[in-house]
Amino acid sequence: MTEHLEKEIQDAQEAVAKQGDTVRSLKASLKEGKSEKADVDAAIQKLAELKLVLEAKQKEFEKATGKVSAQSKEALRAALAGVLERRMFYIPSFKIYGSVAGFYDYGPPGCAIKQNMTQTWRNHFVLEENMLEVECPAVTPEIVLKASGHVDRFTDFMVTDAVTGECFRADHLLEGHLEALLEDKKNPPSAEKIKEIRELLASVGELKQDTMAAALKEYNVRAPGTGNDISPPFPFNLMFKTSIGPKGDLVGYLRPETAQGIFVNFRDLLYYNGGKLPFAAAQIGNSYRNEISPRAGLLRVREFTQAEIEHFVNGADKSHPKFASIAGLRPLLYSRALQMGEEKKAQPMSLGEAVEKGIIANETLAYFIGRTWLFFIKVGINPERMRFRQHLQHEMAHYATDCWDGEVETTYGWVECVGLADRSAYDLKAHTSMSKNDLTAFEKFPEPRMEEVVKVVPNNKELGAVFKKDQKAVKEALEALDECGAMELKSKLEAGETAKVATSTGQAFDIKPGMVEIKKVTEKVTGRTYTPSVIEPSFGIGRIMYCMFEHSYYTREGDETRAVMGFKPIVAPTKATVFPLVQKPALNELATKISRDLTSVGLSNIIDTTGNTIGKRYARTDEIGVPFAVTVDFASVDGDGSVTLRERDSMAQVRVLQSEVANVIRNLVDDRMTWGDVTATYPAQKAQADEE
Amino acid sequence: MTEHLEKEIQDAQEAVAKQGDTVRSLKASLKEGKSEKADVDAAIQKLAELKLVLEAKQKEFEKATGKVSAQSKEALRAALAGVLERRMFYIPSFKIYGSVAGFYDYGPPGCAIKQNMTQTWRNHFVLEENMLEVECPAVTPEIVLKASGHVDRFTDFMVTDAVTGECFRADHLLEGHLEALLEDKKNPPSAEKIKEIRELLASVGELKQDTMAAALKEYNVRAPGTGNDISPPFPFNLMFKTSIGPKGDLVGYLRPETAQGIFVNFRDLLYYNGGKLPFAAAQIGNSYRNEISPRAGLLRVREFTQAEIEHFVNGADKSHPKFASIAGLRPLLYSRALQMGEEKKAQPMSLGEAVEKGIIANETLAYFIGRTWLFFIKVGINPERMRFRQHLQHEMAHYATDCWDGEVETTYGWVECVGLADRSAYDLKAHTSMSKNDLTAFEKFPEPRMEEVVKVVPNNKELGAVFKKDQKAVKEALEALDECGAMELKSKLEAGETAKVATSTGQAFDIKPGMVEIKKVTEKVTGRTYTPSVIEPSFGIGRIMYCMFEHSYYTREGDETRAVMGFKPIVAPTKATVFPLVQKPALNELATKISRDLTSVGLSNIIDTTGNTIGKRYARTDEIGVPFAVTVDFASVDGDGSVTLRERDSMAQVRVLQSEVANVIRNLVDDRMTWGDVTATYPAQKAQADEE
Repeated sequence: MTEHLEKEIQDAQEAVAKQGDTVRSLKASLKEGKSEKADVDAAIQKLAELKLVLEAKQKEFEKATGKVSAQSKEALRAALAGVLERRMFYIPSFKIYGSVAGFYDYGPPGCAIKQNMTQTWRNHFVLEENMLEVECPAVTPEIVLKASGHVDRFTDFMVTDAVTGECFRADHLLEGHLEALLEDKKNPPSAEKIKEIRELLASVGELKQDTMAAALKEYNVRAPGTGNDISPPFPFNLMFKTSIGPKGDLVGYLRPETAQGIFVNFRDLLYYNGGKLPFAAAQIGNSYRNEISPRAGLLRVREFTQAEIEHFVNGADKSHPKFASIAGLRPLLYSRALQMGEEKKAQPMSLGEAVEKGIIANETLAYFIGRTWLFFIKVGINPERMRFRQHLQHEMAHYATDCWDGEVETTYGWVECVGLADRSAYDLKAHTSMSKNDLTAFEKFPEPRMEEVVKVVPNNKELGAVFKKDQKAVKEALEALDECGAMELKSKLEAGETAKVATSTGQAFDIKPGMVEIKKVTEKVTGRTYTPSVIEPSFGIGRIMYCMFEHSYYTREGDETRAVMGFKPIVAPTKATVFPLVQKPALNELATKISRDLTSVGLSNIIDTTGNTIGKRYARTDEIGVPFAVTVDFASVDGDGSVTLRERDSMAQVRVLQSEVANVIRNLVDDRMTWGDVTATYPAQKAQADEE
Repeated sequence: MTEHLEKEIQDAQEAVAKQGDTVRSLKASLKEGKSEKADVDAAIQKLAELKLVLEAKQKEFEKATGKVSAQSKEALRAALAGVLERRMFYIPSFKIYGSVAGFYDYGPPGCAIKQNMTQTWRNHFVLEENMLEVECPAVTPEIVLKASGHVDRFTDFMVTDAVTGECFRADHLLEGHLEALLEDKKNPPSAEKIKEIRELLASVGELKQDTMAAALKEYNVRAPGTGNDISPPFPFNLMFKTSIGPKGDLVGYLRPETAQGIFVNFRDLLYYNGGKLPFAAAQIGNSYRNEISPRAGLLRVREFTQAEIEHFVNGADKSHPKFASIAGLRPLLYSRALQMGEEKKAQPMSLGEAVEKGIIANETLAYFIGRTWLFFIKVGINPERMRFRQHLQHEMAHYATDCWDGEVETTYGWVECVGLADRSAYDLKAHTSMSKNDLTAFEKFPEPRMEEVVKVVPNNKELGAVFKKDQKAVKEALEALDECGAMELKSKLEAGETAKVATSTGQAFDIKPGMVEIKKVTEKVTGRTYTPSVIEPSFGIGRIMYCMFEHSYYTREGDETRAVMGFKPIVAPTKATVFPLVQKPALNELATKISRDLTSVGLSNIIDTTGNTIGKRYARTDEIGVPFAVTVDFASVDGDGSVTLRERDSMAQVRVLQSEVANVIRNLVDDRMTWGDVTATYPAQKAQADEE
């Protein structure tokens, strides 16, 4: 039954290949003036159509055979990539030099979408919450990233082909190998083996160097392509290294995240905020990760834009004043319990309930989950295809309190686009310790309290007599003791013992009874100094863009060859197109005037006087996701002065006065008016254009 | 007469130093809750005041002595830096780790201004001219920068202290040394020597390695600080180097300019533009230069934001369709002739006249000079303190046709903020040659022409017999000959000689008569292939910001302690503040409502309910350059519903209905209304607040 389909798929594949050749040869002759741009465009259009036919056949095959759709995912991804690359949303960087994996350029529409996306993010988070936005350099001296742990721990395990020296990520290699074993039809593994493989697969990301080495050995993983032996896995630091200044002695890295720039400025930011907590700081900027072997296109790149928030809060009180405003939202939550359970499926749950039941650790973290969900919907992510997945206990760093990833479903599976983490006071403490700068805040009690505190009073005379030049260091070491250390010392000295105390240089000194007095006293305390906790929502802008592209892409009902990017107006690179119905000076003139009107209310627009049929023009603008189109006809200039306004997704058309149309579109883009309002207000125009 | 002034200056300096200590100690105790934020602020304010007193004394001294104002420039710069750092416009990066020269962070107001500046740039250039905006990575593989010449030639001469190894820029050292000689009062140089030194000073920037070495030796320049010997000068490449990928064999650099990203995409951009020229592409992004010893604060940094335009045009026709729109503008032009002349002073001249007289090379270059001038004025540069300086012949690269720098006068002298260069076809040719990709455009003639062309027809049989496996390479080499090469070969072969022809791999082969036929034929030619020229306006955003800060800074008439940043509303980080006149719930409520109104029309605003006097609040908002202030009083809630609207620079106040005030400010910010319109429309309020 499916044989004829298989044949058709083969034919379609050949047709795509052949048309690819035609496009290449036409492009070459265009350069020499021997063909026309329109011919090339037509050939490319034809190629896209053939690809879509192939895709449709593949879908049909899958429907018939019931096979799940790896192939159709591939086809969807390829069709989308075709539109994105052809319309220059993005292009592999340095293309004329053969490109370098993991680097992409944004072309004009991609660039516009990225700006709209970051500007929406800024409005949604920074302005709405009065966050303090900063901008710090990407080049960062080593000490900063030593403090943050990146120099020592920001690594992936790498293996190399023992013969060719080619490099691979150990976890990717192991994963690929295990998945292949599971699907091996010739030598299917035993049920027991399957269980073992599945368990290993689930923990690949958390293997340590020795367990990774053991697993690679046990399963006899070999180099892809060559089948050669591989080296044992070793950690490879993912930071791009450089040298600052002319002497070559100051090591620097390109930052792997923007967050550290905020932490090192904490003291100044706190002061800027009048010493008050909580407050949030934010940064939008580029980060860099020298991935071992980047794949997955736009999802794993070596230079990418992050938008990060560090919300500083007193660890003792993580409530949020605006929590009520998001408590009723019901995003899909994929809690630890659901991940460990039978169904392994996220469930919608109100954020209020999630906090109440202790599923989400605190109100502030939940508040940002809610705001993130609203942001994703605003920029065009389908909320039914996004979930918040909680980190399992072993996935979290030891200091983290609770972490949730905002994940979006795509043809690549679930893609992490946002990480939301309650990182406790780890980061500020790390920088305090490395920089010897005090990154703390002071909490003034509403009323002074009487508190029992431990006082350490060194006996200067005695210390001087015994320790001479080291007196000062010993004195400081004694005074620096924390409460427990002091009480321990007290009990030893009271027992007549000698106790060792280490100075800041690590030297230890013998302290004997009489050298120091340690006592508990009751004092009036006006407040306390503490290191704030930080709740960090961290967004990968490029990933969100790619997921949004996948969720926006569709083909016109009944016509699989017509691709549409259904961008929300707020992110669309171009908000409107203006067409004269036919090529007449009066119509062109009015179209130009309307284009100017649109520009003057800040709307990017394209005027198209190519003389193509209206249907073809719509098809072109659909591909770059233009939400509104204005058509000028004879009635616009000679009749009632109205023009046709068409909405992309419904393809519905209304008549609006030419003098009003720019403002109507402005209101639609700003969400002050819905398309429903427009169709209710203005007379409909029968859609004839699309059938042309 | 000036002795008492000198004493007063000394006293003022001591007072500044003492108050500096007070601020530091108050800050420390604020951390421990032992002082109040308000006290610290007051102490800082006092410090600023004392600095301004010092500055005033210095100015007075200069007026009295007639000495030119190096000192007062320093004082102005210091006073401004005080405001900028205190209000966190910027901060040295990695401050808690002791900072690294040449890196700065933008704090919240700096960040906002930078966004406003780049957004204004985007609207003024990209949207207005329909430029194709792209975004390319900063990490760039070596081959791209090899092609552009940066790997080989992007260097400064460096010398090192022979004992300590410290590094210096050779030109800075020589300059400093020569300037000191000129000012040496003890051993004044002879008139002849002065002339020699002045001539050398004028050419320091263009010295080659050997002439620089000779000059350093002749003048016996020694290491600053130590007085040690210095090494001979050697070139130091200013690019940050890194390695891409895990193998370490792919060298990369952080781009030193954004332009190359556009050039390597030329082919795709031309296609995107329908194959039509001229068109412009633009990019806003960060660039990196590993300066040897950065000084001059924000003006010479190692990581900075550029906004660059590459306007691609047929070299045979550099007219511009919108030239008429800027031909009447009269910026200060500092042409080659004026620089070589007696007065050495820029003169205003209309751009139309400058092109007509051949002072500016072509209309397109002049068009961008005009548009740049308008942009500078729009963002708050004083047009009387900015000029366009033409490069002298020896300053330009050999390929450049004409170059002009947009320079702004500051306390550091004239600062280059923009470079506008007609670079001919150099860049595209360089990448064509390195990448072997054809970066040309095709110009279709209006009518086909009959033209004599040289045809090279290899004799395949003969070539095959002689060159065997090299036949193809030799054939390609023959066909690749340009017209001159082919005619030269023809004449040799006709003379019966043997001629050498080199293949693309560099191998040379002997060509003998009979192996190739070369003839001139008359053909119908429909057009020609050419490499486009490029006109490049390149903006340094950070430098423009700093110059704008200097031009915006002033103190209130009669009160040198009150600093004002007179930002244009379009770049101001905060557009308005809202104050309740006194602390009453009804007033606070209305103030909050007005703040929300402002936010909803997209205006950043601050609501200040600190209860400080209105005068103090104005002083604070003046410092961050807030252009408009709204004060809510009892009449606003109980009376006619009007509020006071105050404009920062004139300090004039009017009464506006509370429901209207947000829109009035929106219109003012968007330049749809002037302050003059407002005072003509709304009743004045006598300014009492500032005297409080």
